[in-house]
Amino acid sequence: MTGKQMKIVLQMVSGYGGEFKTWRLPEAKADAYTDMDFYVEMAQLAEKGKLHALFMADTPALVNDLTNETPMHSMDPLIAMTSVARATKHIGLVGTFSTTFNESYNLARHLKTLDVISHGRVGWNAVTTSTPATAANFGTHLKSSRERYGRAHEMIEAVQGLWGSWGEAAYLHEKEAGQFADMSKIKPIHYKGNYIQTAGPLPIPPSEQGQPPIFQAGPSSEGIRLAGRFASGVYANPFTIEEARDYRNALRESAVAHGRSADDIKVFTGFMFTIADSKEKALARRRAVLEFDKEELDQRLSYLAAMVGLNFQGIDPYQPLPKNWLKLAQPNPYDPRSPRALEVLKEGYSPVDTLAHGVINYHPVVIGTAGDVANFLQEWFEAGATDGFSIVPDLAHDGVSAFVEQVVPILQERGIFHEEYEGATLRENLGVPYQYGIRNED
Amino acid sequence: MTGKQMKIVLQMVSGYGGEFKTWRLPEAKADAYTDMDFYVEMAQLAEKGKLHALFMADTPALVNDLTNETPMHSMDPLIAMTSVARATKHIGLVGTFSTTFNESYNLARHLKTLDVISHGRVGWNAVTTSTPATAANFGTHLKSSRERYGRAHEMIEAVQGLWGSWGEAAYLHEKEAGQFADMSKIKPIHYKGNYIQTAGPLPIPPSEQGQPPIFQAGPSSEGIRLAGRFASGVYANPFTIEEARDYRNALRESAVAHGRSADDIKVFTGFMFTIADSKEKALARRRAVLEFDKEELDQRLSYLAAMVGLNFQGIDPYQPLPKNWLKLAQPNPYDPRSPRALEVLKEGYSPVDTLAHGVINYHPVVIGTAGDVANFLQEWFEAGATDGFSIVPDLAHDGVSAFVEQVVPILQERGIFHEEYEGATLRENLGVPYQYGIRNED
Repeated sequence: MTGKQMKIVLQMVSGYGGEFKTWRLPEAKADAYTDMDFYVEMAQLAEKGKLHALFMADTPALVNDLTNETPMHSMDPLIAMTSVARATKHIGLVGTFSTTFNESYNLARHLKTLDVISHGRVGWNAVTTSTPATAANFGTHLKSSRERYGRAHEMIEAVQGLWGSWGEAAYLHEKEAGQFADMSKIKPIHYKGNYIQTAGPLPIPPSEQGQPPIFQAGPSSEGIRLAGRFASGVYANPFTIEEARDYRNALRESAVAHGRSADDIKVFTGFMFTIADSKEKALARRRAVLEFDKEELDQRLSYLAAMVGLNFQGIDPYQPLPKNWLKLAQPNPYDPRSPRALEVLKEGYSPVDTLAHGVINYHPVVIGTAGDVANFLQEWFEAGATDGFSIVPDLAHDGVSAFVEQVVPILQERGIFHEEYEGATLRENLGVPYQYGIRNED
Repeated sequence: MTGKQMKIVLQMVSGYGGEFKTWRLPEAKADAYTDMDFYVEMAQLAEKGKLHALFMADTPALVNDLTNETPMHSMDPLIAMTSVARATKHIGLVGTFSTTFNESYNLARHLKTLDVISHGRVGWNAVTTSTPATAANFGTHLKSSRERYGRAHEMIEAVQGLWGSWGEAAYLHEKEAGQFADMSKIKPIHYKGNYIQTAGPLPIPPSEQGQPPIFQAGPSSEGIRLAGRFASGVYANPFTIEEARDYRNALRESAVAHGRSADDIKVFTGFMFTIADSKEKALARRRAVLEFDKEELDQRLSYLAAMVGLNFQGIDPYQPLPKNWLKLAQPNPYDPRSPRALEVLKEGYSPVDTLAHGVINYHPVVIGTAGDVANFLQEWFEAGATDGFSIVPDLAHDGVSAFVEQVVPILQERGIFHEEYEGATLRENLGVPYQYGIRNED
């Protein structure tokens, strides 16, 4: 791995963080959801830390109960990405846009325009979207996986076709000659698929990176095939290094099977963290967040008990479990987070402190110092588990600065994170090839 | 009309102006189409001149030959509006978004988010879009007017319904109480029309103006009915004061017929201009633009001849027409611009100079000094022909500054244009009522 450096993108979630109750912490800005100034400030801080990109996941629907939690997604990724693009110079901007619930022409137009005005910093995370609430917002029902992925392939083809419909050298704007554009290089594509039809052309010149690279996020075999064909980046959600390595290898093989180089696809592993001066302080913060909602804490304790095959009824969840109980415990094979949960309990942490370790978060978690975080990232990276990370602070409002000011310098000192952006575009910074229009698959 | 002041919005077109060959003038920035910094600078200048709003017309298709002309529309109105929103504080942002070629949920989400982050400065020009090229981009054919307007009514209802689906008082974000939102006030709308179905809710709080006001632009009886029901602003394209007054009255009556006040609907008349120190200098500039394309100039001369029932073959088009010819001339009743064309010819201008007056532009035109422009606007406004203007410079690159620095002070001195923005939101500045969700039509 000598000379190789990890890539890091920051998940912005809805403006708070990956823990949906951290908005109640003293450090939080309670109205961050609707404050674009603040959102932009966080992006600028991420750029100061040389993070490769911001990542905005999305589902076009209200998918969680907001009574005491912040939303899972931003008000609108496209508006947020545009706002950030205008206030930054280097950081990439990757957003999720559904292949199912968009019109190809509108989507191609939005993303290419944003790529042009950001000077080549946009990426498109193309996902099929599989929540019934979203389908209902678009007056329909969820389709089968086969249909959703069939449409996803067509959507990416159509969008890339529209992107390429304005020839690379067609934007002349030569006053003297009076030639604004070379219309012989601007042609309709007349795309006719089973799901998508669009004529074009899309009258937008190329950006400095040609067009946005594709990202992908679904771990199914259909997802791996889609990624191998199209994706320059993949968001992965493994819980162990072994799982991560297998998944990354499958993606790399899929790229090769589609006539591409294995290195053309970069895997970003989801990773959550809470950083404090000491592990105990970080745990105290996470305990405070758990205690905002006693009812949910009880539910989580029950879930934790089930994860390790025990029953916590009648115990004091703030005390370590008796050693003889732990001997009986067994990780639940249906939840890949169970071995880690049992490991933390066996280290002598109480059930509440075990939850405070984030053992039922949806990514691997480090609760500790900046050095702990750096160690984790280095271990996974050097084990070949991933090309980089998609980091999610528990709360962005202090988590981004903690990462940028404390973790990044450690990674840089160890030579595993860049000191400066490699190039001007997202493709250059990711180390993936230039592309314009549809790739020739021979 | 005492105490009443006109409203002015600026049409940004594709970043150049309403004349698609002015990009070749020395004053022009040839690559303005793709330079968002420059676009934003022009918007800031318009705000300095207290213009009420920018207006971005749109058709999601390539609708003109770009060989030697600039595009009719911006790369993407949504991206442009967002970029401007982040760099201005007062000016409104009105964009055309098709009721036919958008998904209701996506459109509602984009516009409400932009309204929130601009602090209540967005307007939606809801048009049905009637170009076959656009339909082809969306894999379909143009529908009948009845179907297009049927869908337009449903689209506005659905979008306004989604806007209102997050209750006005639902965004609590109270840390101490731990209440982020009042879910009893956030409800699906389950909209089921013939053309549009959407469930909601849309998880976005109100802006300072509640939600974007609706604009409309179609002059048919269907268009007038749609405007009367929904619109706060209408873009009008009359060529005479009489025509303008009749149209405005029809719109006002339509508002009243839909249970609204006549003053709730503001008419903006399209108006084009070229400003110079003298009329001769302004004409010289327009002549230069005509002469960029001799072939098209010949075509325009033929068209002008047809407008006044003459044949220009064999004449010197740079010389005034003989008086005895002009006696035989008759304005063509099928082109409402013909009387004005004949009037200019009769003033002794040559056919080329008559064209240089913009007589076949798609709006009334003043070619002259800032005073000439101010006089025109005052005359139409005080005649009750319009509530304001949608101004289109021949080239924005010097036309916006000419208008802001020279015309605006004259209008202000005459008391017919505001010295300062009336309020904080677009609705306040337009003088139209607050609205949230769907208006009760009892």
